[in-house]
Amino acid sequence: MKAAVVDDHGRASPSVSLPTHPERGQEAGLETMCETIRRAMTAADVSLEDVAAIGVATPGTMDLKSGYILDPPNLKPWHNVPVRDHIAKVFGKPTAFQNDANAAALGEYWVGAGAGVRSLVMFTLGTGVGGGIIWNGEVIEGEHSHGAELGHMKIEMTNPRLCGCGKRGCLEAYASATAVVKRTEEALSDAKPSVLHPILEEKKLTARAIFDAAKAGDALAARIVDETAAILALGAANLMHVINPEMVVFAGGMVEAGDWFLQQIRRHIPNYAFPVPAERTQIRFAQLGSDAGFIGAAACARQLVRGAFRR
Amino acid sequence: MKAAVVDDHGRASPSVSLPTHPERGQEAGLETMCETIRRAMTAADVSLEDVAAIGVATPGTMDLKSGYILDPPNLKPWHNVPVRDHIAKVFGKPTAFQNDANAAALGEYWVGAGAGVRSLVMFTLGTGVGGGIIWNGEVIEGEHSHGAELGHMKIEMTNPRLCGCGKRGCLEAYASATAVVKRTEEALSDAKPSVLHPILEEKKLTARAIFDAAKAGDALAARIVDETAAILALGAANLMHVINPEMVVFAGGMVEAGDWFLQQIRRHIPNYAFPVPAERTQIRFAQLGSDAGFIGAAACARQLVRGAFRR
Repeated sequence: MKAAVVDDHGRASPSVSLPTHPERGQEAGLETMCETIRRAMTAADVSLEDVAAIGVATPGTMDLKSGYILDPPNLKPWHNVPVRDHIAKVFGKPTAFQNDANAAALGEYWVGAGAGVRSLVMFTLGTGVGGGIIWNGEVIEGEHSHGAELGHMKIEMTNPRLCGCGKRGCLEAYASATAVVKRTEEALSDAKPSVLHPILEEKKLTARAIFDAAKAGDALAARIVDETAAILALGAANLMHVINPEMVVFAGGMVEAGDWFLQQIRRHIPNYAFPVPAERTQIRFAQLGSDAGFIGAAACARQLVRGAFRR
Repeated sequence: MKAAVVDDHGRASPSVSLPTHPERGQEAGLETMCETIRRAMTAADVSLEDVAAIGVATPGTMDLKSGYILDPPNLKPWHNVPVRDHIAKVFGKPTAFQNDANAAALGEYWVGAGAGVRSLVMFTLGTGVGGGIIWNGEVIEGEHSHGAELGHMKIEMTNPRLCGCGKRGCLEAYASATAVVKRTEEALSDAKPSVLHPILEEKKLTARAIFDAAKAGDALAARIVDETAAILALGAANLMHVINPEMVVFAGGMVEAGDWFLQQIRRHIPNYAFPVPAERTQIRFAQLGSDAGFIGAAACARQLVRGAFRR
């Protein structure tokens, strides 16, 4: 668990972290959450009186209206955890609760890649593919807390890959870091020549290794990366035809590959999007890195006291 | 061109229609538009003083911010037509201009299938597939007037069908009435037995004929209809994972097939959507039929003077 004090301009104090230890149960987890918040205030030399509001962002299934974490796959045995009301009660402050990808998108909108734009869609590429949509300065949470689950758009019918969610054909099954590794393993099993063979044998095949190999000129890795760029362009284009935002942002480990990968995604956009959004939609990499979580959570908290961002 | 006077509760007077005659040019077209509005007022026995605002909804490419029709494929030789300002000037009334599918969605939200829900996504199934999204009581127009172009979500990569838009893999290339006929023609060319063969030979193969044959028990037609239901369920599920609205509405000629087709779409939803939205999202057919256009245009006009719908 990571926390920081964020001021009204989105500037964060150095963050503090504590291990979650989900196995100790949700009561202990909530107390760790409170302790992380206290330590962040101490580290920033800020007293509770100076805190206007608190924002909490978590992954997993949740009910945003009630402020509950439901059944987080990575936080077993937690079940139906009243995060928002617990934090609000302990600290006596207005408390916002949000999905981590939604919060990160609002953070990028506030002071990151999307500072200044009116609307934004963000794809977060990690072990899964998350998403966040900012429209009219607000997160589209959805009616059942499933807004912007962009990794679970279906993009393939003929030969759809199995997704971690149990369905087939999801964007996540093609474009997550995990999926990129899997697609590469399959390509390597066809005995194609690649510098990645020994890396696979050492069980060190990661998305980063694949992107490095592509950059260094490995043909197989380059093909996997280009296919990934095409799939992400398709995902972006789909959102251009649903939300049609001013900007699409990609976040997560893969964006560390650098500008050449961003250019590659951009090159594929006209194959999938109408000319006007293809030309006008800004495509960017996220700027806040791993700070997006707490800056985004703070953005959600700020909205509680200052209202929605209006541009 | 069709117009009606709509009161503050969404009740429409009998509509009047005039032929568009696009070949006479856009000046004549704008005058016909004005004349249709005048005749609707006359037919409703309403004077201009009693009109609070005017709404105009049209198909085709447009710039909603400036109120222009740009290059409508079905209205050649029209080009850059200042619809909104022209109507506002001629009648001296606040005038709203909207894409026809967006307007229809707002109409259904106001007094149709979606009366009472907080948010709604609508798919309009005709020669193409249009869409409209109502979130926070407002149309998501998009930044470049491309919001809710739901027919152009890409849903297939391996063997993507060519769409009328020139791209491949669009929902429209599978689920429009035109696409349903095309998919049936292909199935019939494989010499499969079907009551549709003589209908094809008479060049009378329509989506309606296919749905009728399916209802009457023709196996080939039933398979085409079931595949169509699956594709529409996939499209609805994708929007459950982007917008996660309270309701998904299907509109257009195909919904005349009746409740059994709606049930068929619903049965496929759990194959594509997460359990919570799959269970909770209402799936409905539109209720306003061909009145959705002018009732929706009136809903847009109403927002100009009364503000966004809030629920």
